[in-house]
Amino acid sequence: MRRDVIAGQVRAMKDAGLDALISISPENFAYVTGFLSPTQPLMRWRHAMALVMADGTVALVAVDMEASTIRAKSPPGTKIAVWHEFKFDAMSVLAGLLREHGLGQARIGIEMDYLPAGDLTTLSKLLPQARFTAAQALLARLREIKTSEEIDILRRLSRIADKAITDAYRSVRAGSSEMELAAALTRGIYEQGAEYFKLMIVATGERSVFPNVGPTGRVLKEGDVCRVEIFPMISGYHAGVCRTAAIGMPPPQAERIWANLTACKSMLLDAIKPGASSRAIYDLYLKKVGELGLPPISFVGDGIGLHLHEDPYLGPTEDRALEAGMVLGIEPLIYETGHGFGMQNKDMVLVTSRGCELLSNHLDTDKLLIVE
Amino acid sequence: MRRDVIAGQVRAMKDAGLDALISISPENFAYVTGFLSPTQPLMRWRHAMALVMADGTVALVAVDMEASTIRAKSPPGTKIAVWHEFKFDAMSVLAGLLREHGLGQARIGIEMDYLPAGDLTTLSKLLPQARFTAAQALLARLREIKTSEEIDILRRLSRIADKAITDAYRSVRAGSSEMELAAALTRGIYEQGAEYFKLMIVATGERSVFPNVGPTGRVLKEGDVCRVEIFPMISGYHAGVCRTAAIGMPPPQAERIWANLTACKSMLLDAIKPGASSRAIYDLYLKKVGELGLPPISFVGDGIGLHLHEDPYLGPTEDRALEAGMVLGIEPLIYETGHGFGMQNKDMVLVTSRGCELLSNHLDTDKLLIVE
Repeated sequence: MRRDVIAGQVRAMKDAGLDALISISPENFAYVTGFLSPTQPLMRWRHAMALVMADGTVALVAVDMEASTIRAKSPPGTKIAVWHEFKFDAMSVLAGLLREHGLGQARIGIEMDYLPAGDLTTLSKLLPQARFTAAQALLARLREIKTSEEIDILRRLSRIADKAITDAYRSVRAGSSEMELAAALTRGIYEQGAEYFKLMIVATGERSVFPNVGPTGRVLKEGDVCRVEIFPMISGYHAGVCRTAAIGMPPPQAERIWANLTACKSMLLDAIKPGASSRAIYDLYLKKVGELGLPPISFVGDGIGLHLHEDPYLGPTEDRALEAGMVLGIEPLIYETGHGFGMQNKDMVLVTSRGCELLSNHLDTDKLLIVE
Repeated sequence: MRRDVIAGQVRAMKDAGLDALISISPENFAYVTGFLSPTQPLMRWRHAMALVMADGTVALVAVDMEASTIRAKSPPGTKIAVWHEFKFDAMSVLAGLLREHGLGQARIGIEMDYLPAGDLTTLSKLLPQARFTAAQALLARLREIKTSEEIDILRRLSRIADKAITDAYRSVRAGSSEMELAAALTRGIYEQGAEYFKLMIVATGERSVFPNVGPTGRVLKEGDVCRVEIFPMISGYHAGVCRTAAIGMPPPQAERIWANLTACKSMLLDAIKPGASSRAIYDLYLKKVGELGLPPISFVGDGIGLHLHEDPYLGPTEDRALEAGMVLGIEPLIYETGHGFGMQNKDMVLVTSRGCELLSNHLDTDKLLIVE
């Protein structure tokens, strides 16, 4: 149980006039407890919940089949209310827990962007006097500033992703398949200690123009441009790194476009510091790609941690002042360069007290990586 | 677009008195279209939806950043309504699409176990005359009987998992770490053509008693019992296979307990056939583990396909007659044998017209696998 996180939730709850906060998404459950409930991210009905009360008391709700795992990971004495998968009684066990703590008529924050509509209906019938209100924005705001424990995990993950991608590129050549590249990549992240990963992108040759596509049997050819990205995970945290490489001689224009992308990256690293405006940074990026005659993307960076994308975004929508302790993924990228290939460079950056630190610093990306 | 699936939804909609069905979960979107919207399973706000109308017309809703991928995978002429991630207008685009098709006052089935409570509130305000009703059970029922295309994918995935686990065990020895086992395993599934995977379990030695835990840095020792499971994925489909092995000489009792588990597996394979009662099969399993003095698990099998667990379950809750075309994961397993280790054997089975076919038939599990 993370005392610093719980203290932050207690303060935010007081400011918002809430009596309790229920974390019901995998990421917010992990934020309070420090660990994921193993299959909650995979089966959405396997609810795991962390209830934090105004006095800092915490109680967990776990499904029967994972109660032993959650108990083993929690401090001794942690209150864990267990529901039964085949009695479908998660909401009823939660309602009982709330009543037990005198919260049957309370004002309770919950994640309305996660809680399924059917479960809210059930819960509202069980506790008709309670007022359930949307708390996802409050929880997201707290998660923006990382603790030193979180920064350590994210630094380690950034390095794992960066090194695994670099090594995977070096293990293939023309004639290898996208699947072989993927195999080397996953091997690399597990060997370095990742527990899982999300969203592996392996997009080579003519497929390099598509966002978010996984590996296929496509065989690498001389002159292919390849985009490879992976988000390894430890304790529910993600780092996302993407690297572009050419197989042998790059196509015409590739090195010029790459130089422009790395110039974008440098510009972003110079601009990211406490107090900088998220929208001003996006505008800088827009100006740069505009000068280069390249199509912009809808945001050039985002918070990252317990979710792949978190607040704040470096995009057109909101204007936020960056703060020390934020960790951002930044990705100047071009899906369609107009020459039949896409290029992407995604890095992890920590906002420090004076500027920023590049967390994904294994591969020097000033020059386009060439796979011989 | 899958015409057979759409025809089934049209029939079910008519029986249920619905004017339209909205698939909003990743699995039901893929069921209609034949492909996953890439990041929908990873970022729950990236809604992708498939609207099927009573006359069989289909329209999709996609987020801007994945519209190009979805368009490339859809037949030419498919209606795709695009919403904008940073305008947060998914529900508004959906409401517009429904109105455009004269469904502003219709009775519309939607997945209330997936749709977030906040989105239902928004949608109900936008279309106050429409009646949204829970359709998850109807959709789950349709997905129980697999098409021949689905069976081909599941057979291939079963073999991929089975072979990858067997090969991964053969690549390690005492002194290797759980991470090396995991690395070999993921390499194996990608080399064979998997696109992704879920829920890798690597639980060795004293960790073999925990459900659903991933790999750690733990080093394998002589006498360890190991449980390794993985669910590789292709086109959104999963197969789940688990194999148990001992590192060198197995501990006392291990081979006897393994023989009992394989006897359970044989018994299940004999019992699974069209018309067999799901609860009677679970009762058979309970009787068997009762005779052996071992703790039962809460279900011994489940449907599998676009989700890790689907209906029907072989458990105590429901009594269902099995039907040809169902694909089941069956897993007689014992987390805590009373001797400090757990053992698990999970297989994939297709219900055929006369009995069943073991899809995960790469490794002969009659004898406990010994890693030398």
